[in-house]
Amino acid sequence: IPNKPVTIEEIEVAPPEADEVRIKIVATSVCHTDLYHLFEGMHKDGFPVVLGHEAAGIVESVGSGVTEFQPGDKVIPLFLAQCRDCRFCKSPKTNQCEKAWVEHRADAMSPLRSRLTCKGKKVYQFSGISTFSEYTVVKQINVTKIDPAAPLDKVCLLGCGICTGYGAAVNTAKVEEGSTCAVFGLGAIGLAAVMGCKNAGAKRIIAVDINPDKFEKAKVFGATDFVNPKDHDKPISQVLFEMTNGGVDYSLECVGNVGVMRSALESTIPAWGVSVIVGWTTLHDFSAPPGDLIAGRTWKGTMFGGFKSKDGVPEMVNAYMNKKLMVDEFITDNMTFDQINDAIEMMKHGKCIRTVLTFTE
Amino acid sequence: IPNKPVTIEEIEVAPPEADEVRIKIVATSVCHTDLYHLFEGMHKDGFPVVLGHEAAGIVESVGSGVTEFQPGDKVIPLFLAQCRDCRFCKSPKTNQCEKAWVEHRADAMSPLRSRLTCKGKKVYQFSGISTFSEYTVVKQINVTKIDPAAPLDKVCLLGCGICTGYGAAVNTAKVEEGSTCAVFGLGAIGLAAVMGCKNAGAKRIIAVDINPDKFEKAKVFGATDFVNPKDHDKPISQVLFEMTNGGVDYSLECVGNVGVMRSALESTIPAWGVSVIVGWTTLHDFSAPPGDLIAGRTWKGTMFGGFKSKDGVPEMVNAYMNKKLMVDEFITDNMTFDQINDAIEMMKHGKCIRTVLTFTE
Repeated sequence: IPNKPVTIEEIEVAPPEADEVRIKIVATSVCHTDLYHLFEGMHKDGFPVVLGHEAAGIVESVGSGVTEFQPGDKVIPLFLAQCRDCRFCKSPKTNQCEKAWVEHRADAMSPLRSRLTCKGKKVYQFSGISTFSEYTVVKQINVTKIDPAAPLDKVCLLGCGICTGYGAAVNTAKVEEGSTCAVFGLGAIGLAAVMGCKNAGAKRIIAVDINPDKFEKAKVFGATDFVNPKDHDKPISQVLFEMTNGGVDYSLECVGNVGVMRSALESTIPAWGVSVIVGWTTLHDFSAPPGDLIAGRTWKGTMFGGFKSKDGVPEMVNAYMNKKLMVDEFITDNMTFDQINDAIEMMKHGKCIRTVLTFTE
Repeated sequence: IPNKPVTIEEIEVAPPEADEVRIKIVATSVCHTDLYHLFEGMHKDGFPVVLGHEAAGIVESVGSGVTEFQPGDKVIPLFLAQCRDCRFCKSPKTNQCEKAWVEHRADAMSPLRSRLTCKGKKVYQFSGISTFSEYTVVKQINVTKIDPAAPLDKVCLLGCGICTGYGAAVNTAKVEEGSTCAVFGLGAIGLAAVMGCKNAGAKRIIAVDINPDKFEKAKVFGATDFVNPKDHDKPISQVLFEMTNGGVDYSLECVGNVGVMRSALESTIPAWGVSVIVGWTTLHDFSAPPGDLIAGRTWKGTMFGGFKSKDGVPEMVNAYMNKKLMVDEFITDNMTFDQINDAIEMMKHGKCIRTVLTFTE
């Protein structure tokens, strides 16, 4: 039943099959995609479900065919798999995994063959992982081993939001040194996109949000200009055009609103602008006049920031450990897992960037 | 008055100003964009106009500041300018010219400050050039000198259609060797796109058109598979998905229909597919679900095939002279200029690929 919480005690997690890993979740954060599924009906038939997909934990047991992991390994579960064996995994052009497609369905947000049950009945495993749970069981292609020294209550954020936004700038848009960028939406993903633009050497990063309370945080991550569309009568694309002498080089849509997607596209310079859709929605189609692209713009999208997940997440953990990447700055609240409903309410009302939930022993 | 032809004797062409070149048009062909303007109202206020933008001629006189051209030079007028001096012309990322934008308006199809009059009243100069005229006057940034040995009644086609389609594949999509491509729409631009895919080394080129009479010609240019959407009950993207084990690597929309644009996008493989909008329309917006791009696809557009016009057209003429590029094969009819209304009717009814009109002395 949608929206009806089930207490975690009632969920049973199966032991791992041959190619599976059972993980004890130590810390999980709440991402807006969890709320999207919960409140906006990503999959009408996707309930009952255990939500959560941004987490870190410790391997509890492994299936008979698993050699890559052993109990005690620190890991991050991956909603986007990497089998390293299919034609997609072998191509440098994509971070998709064809094996995951076959097993999950082509749209990566769909629930897969679940390993969770509640009172004997199947419960969907959100994004193939489900981390709002003391334990979860995932395919070995859906988990990656990380630096054993990494603090799990921090690096859990690298399971989704930070990698998605950061990679959107660095891997998908391929932001160049000295360029001008605009980031629409300053949640965790947008802030991570700002950080990506900054680390890629952008000289100007325009942060756009209708909530000006977010600008201070955006400055921490490297934003240089701040625009609240509510302060302007003209379309935001026109405002950015005028600020930048003809449009930004790169724009990143981190909201999941098709109107904002179009604004982000049209804020780029027609000759070579690149706009990346990072926000997720299935509620509407995006649209634009063909001339927007014919003038020379490129419209792309990104899933998990273009990172090949099993390879990319440990590298991002290392970047954090080496102080090349901010993570702590995203965490606005720490709670215990039994406060999850409070954490979801806070996210719903834009009162937090990331809340990290830890399981008490 | 739209649709009312004016006999050419009544048009007066001004002498060239300092930065202009007056050209005696020798041969002009009819492109579908002329018909689009005429019948589909690209600019409701764009009449009266002298149409035509795909031509070749000989310089008749030059303005006082022009050193690049002299009378007698064989030239091709360029609807897309290249000044070689602005930030766009100096960037390898675009073939747009900012100087042209300032003078013409940002949308390149708009009429510019015309040099043509009829009975003392201004007549719009289509795409900044107007080649359905014995003479025309254009800015020196809107014309390029070509090999004096080139047959003008052939290479006139390099003024628009062939460069647009060919370049869409080679410059914009950047089709790779061994790849699989789909070309939607088999007019001159689509056929040139097929040729571009072939010359780029594509191993499979699927030609898509609802008029199966076009398939024979597409084979000449290198198409390997032929699909008529009318032969299938399922969506064409599904048909191509099944034919290619998950989608083509590149697709090119050469129709100018927003529904086809979406089909072309969705026919590409989600992980790394690139779809290029080549066909022009301002009648509707294109649209698609965000997930189409988030899965990994890229949507681009192309104007004049991404060629920097002044540099690219002479190179394309040389490629033709060196038998690296087919041009003659696009010409289905030759007429004299006074038969232009017949040529337009033939194009309107899809009875030709390209009709070349020559001016009799």
